[in-house]
Amino acid sequence: MRAVTMEQGVLTPVDLPDPIPEKGEVIVRTLACGICGSDLHAARHFDDFVRTSRESGGAFKLTTFNPVVLGHEFCAEIVDYGPHTEHSLPVGARVCSIPMLRRTPPVPIGYSEAAPGGFAEYMLLSESLISPVPGGLNADLAALTEPMAVGYHAVNKANLRGSEATLVIGCGPVGLAVIIALKQRGIAPIVAADYSSKRRELAIKVGADVVFDPEDKSAYTYAPLTKPQDVVYFECVGVPGMLDEIFVGAPKNARIVVVGICISMDHSRPLIAVNKELSVQYVLGYTEEEFVQSLHHISSGEFDVSQLVTDETGFDGLANAFKVLANPEQQGKILVKPEL
Amino acid sequence: MRAVTMEQGVLTPVDLPDPIPEKGEVIVRTLACGICGSDLHAARHFDDFVRTSRESGGAFKLTTFNPVVLGHEFCAEIVDYGPHTEHSLPVGARVCSIPMLRRTPPVPIGYSEAAPGGFAEYMLLSESLISPVPGGLNADLAALTEPMAVGYHAVNKANLRGSEATLVIGCGPVGLAVIIALKQRGIAPIVAADYSSKRRELAIKVGADVVFDPEDKSAYTYAPLTKPQDVVYFECVGVPGMLDEIFVGAPKNARIVVVGICISMDHSRPLIAVNKELSVQYVLGYTEEEFVQSLHHISSGEFDVSQLVTDETGFDGLANAFKVLANPEQQGKILVKPEL
Repeated sequence: MRAVTMEQGVLTPVDLPDPIPEKGEVIVRTLACGICGSDLHAARHFDDFVRTSRESGGAFKLTTFNPVVLGHEFCAEIVDYGPHTEHSLPVGARVCSIPMLRRTPPVPIGYSEAAPGGFAEYMLLSESLISPVPGGLNADLAALTEPMAVGYHAVNKANLRGSEATLVIGCGPVGLAVIIALKQRGIAPIVAADYSSKRRELAIKVGADVVFDPEDKSAYTYAPLTKPQDVVYFECVGVPGMLDEIFVGAPKNARIVVVGICISMDHSRPLIAVNKELSVQYVLGYTEEEFVQSLHHISSGEFDVSQLVTDETGFDGLANAFKVLANPEQQGKILVKPEL
Repeated sequence: MRAVTMEQGVLTPVDLPDPIPEKGEVIVRTLACGICGSDLHAARHFDDFVRTSRESGGAFKLTTFNPVVLGHEFCAEIVDYGPHTEHSLPVGARVCSIPMLRRTPPVPIGYSEAAPGGFAEYMLLSESLISPVPGGLNADLAALTEPMAVGYHAVNKANLRGSEATLVIGCGPVGLAVIIALKQRGIAPIVAADYSSKRRELAIKVGADVVFDPEDKSAYTYAPLTKPQDVVYFECVGVPGMLDEIFVGAPKNARIVVVGICISMDHSRPLIAVNKELSVQYVLGYTEEEFVQSLHHISSGEFDVSQLVTDETGFDGLANAFKVLANPEQQGKILVKPEL
């Protein structure tokens, strides 16, 4: 099959053997697969990424220095069933799945040699984890299930009562997913901040009520965000120093949900957080249930994801797409499609 | 009046003019006043403490380099009423109060030139903040209301459901107050850790079920603390690096309540916290209601504070008591009494 491997940060279109299903697994053909910020990070900071994956023992499971096929935000169609499967959906059915194979131990799809991701013509999925894409939903939007589930989970973990003013810091794909999930929940105001005008524009399109360019004016002083109760920040940047900046800018009793992933050591001044009695909830990923709910919220239009995808590419253009995405002013989400 | 001033970290017995009440204020005679860790810190790291107080704008309000009379954990008796007071309690009544004068702006008792603390014969209190000490309770135990309120507030902020296993890290006066408040709440097990054998012994006396010396064995591996739900840590140490250590040792979904106050910049690895979806609640002080409830829980015996006080001193011995308290193996809480 055709695929793009990533080796030591370099993306190369190649021909690979078709993957062979183990028991309970399904062979699927990739229809569309988004490029995730983690993919960019894995390629750009390869050694660091692998080392941190090995140390942290968590979800960042690119633990090999060997070539892998990235891509974990996909929609695909069933091509064939492997051994010990129930043929629960017809061949040709379009499906989504959390990017994980239910082996022992579980294998992360798109971050392992054993499970090529969506930057390949074919993938393996665990039959017990596939969800059919509802009727009218196209593959492009269905491929956004995974990143939307990340935002949805973050909003769920915030335990919102409904009266909160929210600030989404960073409007990359994760921040936009948080905004969409907040909008679906009826939260207002949703304030968003990003240095990129393109991203602020996208934030408004997907549901932010007000946007700030931190270069010009601090969102922290926006009146609804200065209440000494019921202010919730979603940190979707993940660079060192962000948390301390939020500590300084936050009003008393503010809650901070950390969605952005800071790979390195971070620093902050606890005394500031103590004086304001702030709380910090670190979040990661989503549950299987949240993943399926995200797919259905996309299908029903409750999650309005129509503005997220700004471009698409085939395998030959993938390396260039990674370069383009380094500049936040150019693109939102880029989808990869084998047939292009 | 006789008093002990603290100037540039040096404690000196002196004679001061008696304080003059403003409207709504009461003159009280100090019966007993505990030495708080913050007092030790203020004396030992004087410049730092004043600078941080000024920067943080919060509760650590020793903002002057001039001499002050420390002492904010007191029980006192009413001597006289100032102007515009309601004489709500008889002269001679024993009272406690949060260490604050209701002026504009509020004045922290024991951290301000305007409001000498309990290391003096007389203090001023705001009539609207005084609570009568219930009948049979002696002044020594009533003086523990303030530190107990700190522990009680921390436990309240943990939003316990009752099924949690808890680890109290650090068994100084704050950690012990947390243990007592957890015990009153019926939480089990209460696990406590401290390098000091004296403090571990006190922890058991006030209600800890199990204690660990971190030198010998990590409490993090104690089975009840490894459940991936319902583990709550109370960080009562407040030194840089503690939070990161907890991140490493914690099971998934653990909640961390930061009660110990780390004055300097702290560092931690967010990726570890993200992978475990940890949460951190920073807490400070207590509400007026929690203060009064603490006094009543001490009086009723629900808070068993009988083991906390290990020594007492007069004004002349105060400087030495500060030195003694630098060694955790020697004393728990030392009470200061003007008549000694």
